[in-house]
Amino acid sequence: MQFYEDLVVGAVERFGRYEVTREEVLDFARKYDPQAFHLDDAAAARTHFGRLAASGWHTAAMTMAMLVAHWQGAGYRGLGSPGIDELRWLRPVYPGDVLSVEAELLMRRRSKTRPERGIIRSASRTLNQHGEVVMTMVSNGMVEVGDPAAPIGE
Amino acid sequence: MQFYEDLVVGAVERFGRYEVTREEVLDFARKYDPQAFHLDDAAAARTHFGRLAASGWHTAAMTMAMLVAHWQGAGYRGLGSPGIDELRWLRPVYPGDVLSVEAELLMRRRSKTRPERGIIRSASRTLNQHGEVVMTMVSNGMVEVGDPAAPIGE
Repeated sequence: MQFYEDLVVGAVERFGRYEVTREEVLDFARKYDPQAFHLDDAAAARTHFGRLAASGWHTAAMTMAMLVAHWQGAGYRGLGSPGIDELRWLRPVYPGDVLSVEAELLMRRRSKTRPERGIIRSASRTLNQHGEVVMTMVSNGMVEVGDPAAPIGE
Repeated sequence: MQFYEDLVVGAVERFGRYEVTREEVLDFARKYDPQAFHLDDAAAARTHFGRLAASGWHTAAMTMAMLVAHWQGAGYRGLGSPGIDELRWLRPVYPGDVLSVEAELLMRRRSKTRPERGIIRSASRTLNQHGEVVMTMVSNGMVEVGDPAAPIGE
């Protein structure tokens, strides 16, 4: 197990490999974002997307899948998230793309009201196979404190 | 069809009805957010969620489903979104909850570089069946301009 006190502010990590399939793009869009450019090749070709593109919320969900796998693989146990400060969809994501993540820890501090919880803020960039940034976000999260003497934060 | 020029800044609308099923909560979490409190009753009971809760990204996706249905029902054609300015998960969403949305148009203006596009910013609140706010977000979007003489924006 890893804990709040093991996190290093400023550390940058690269991880993840997510193959975007046409079937999954269509399935997500049908359920949650049934706009024509996420569902129909001909309609998408008439928009600035150029061709069938994944919902931005799908890109966020695929990014989350990579983040969770990374944290769990590293031995951290998350305690949920109060929210996202900024999320930007910078380029379309297409079926056939392979996504990965680069994340930097911006801040950590212990909760004032619940000192057994650490509060963290991190910036992530979601990249496609060409190294282009398709999405960025600044997210807040909570993580377990292992050592009661862990630093208050920075 | 409705266009940019039909949007009224300050208008508040309530819409949507989304029944959160246990099967869908588990399905989304398995694919995109496999943390214990989204997958396992006993594990969730040991956390501040109290019981099995939906992924926050799932709540965002369900909210998007209601937003898209509303816009499409009203006759607007979206052109995609550059991103979200702030997203907050305020309360857990549980299987059995019934969600709805309240949205306010905060700003509209025409794109300087592409005057055939309108840029809008709106604030939405996602509510459960008790009228409690479970999620808020401020989102940016683009919508078609119908009338070339439409106002620049406010």
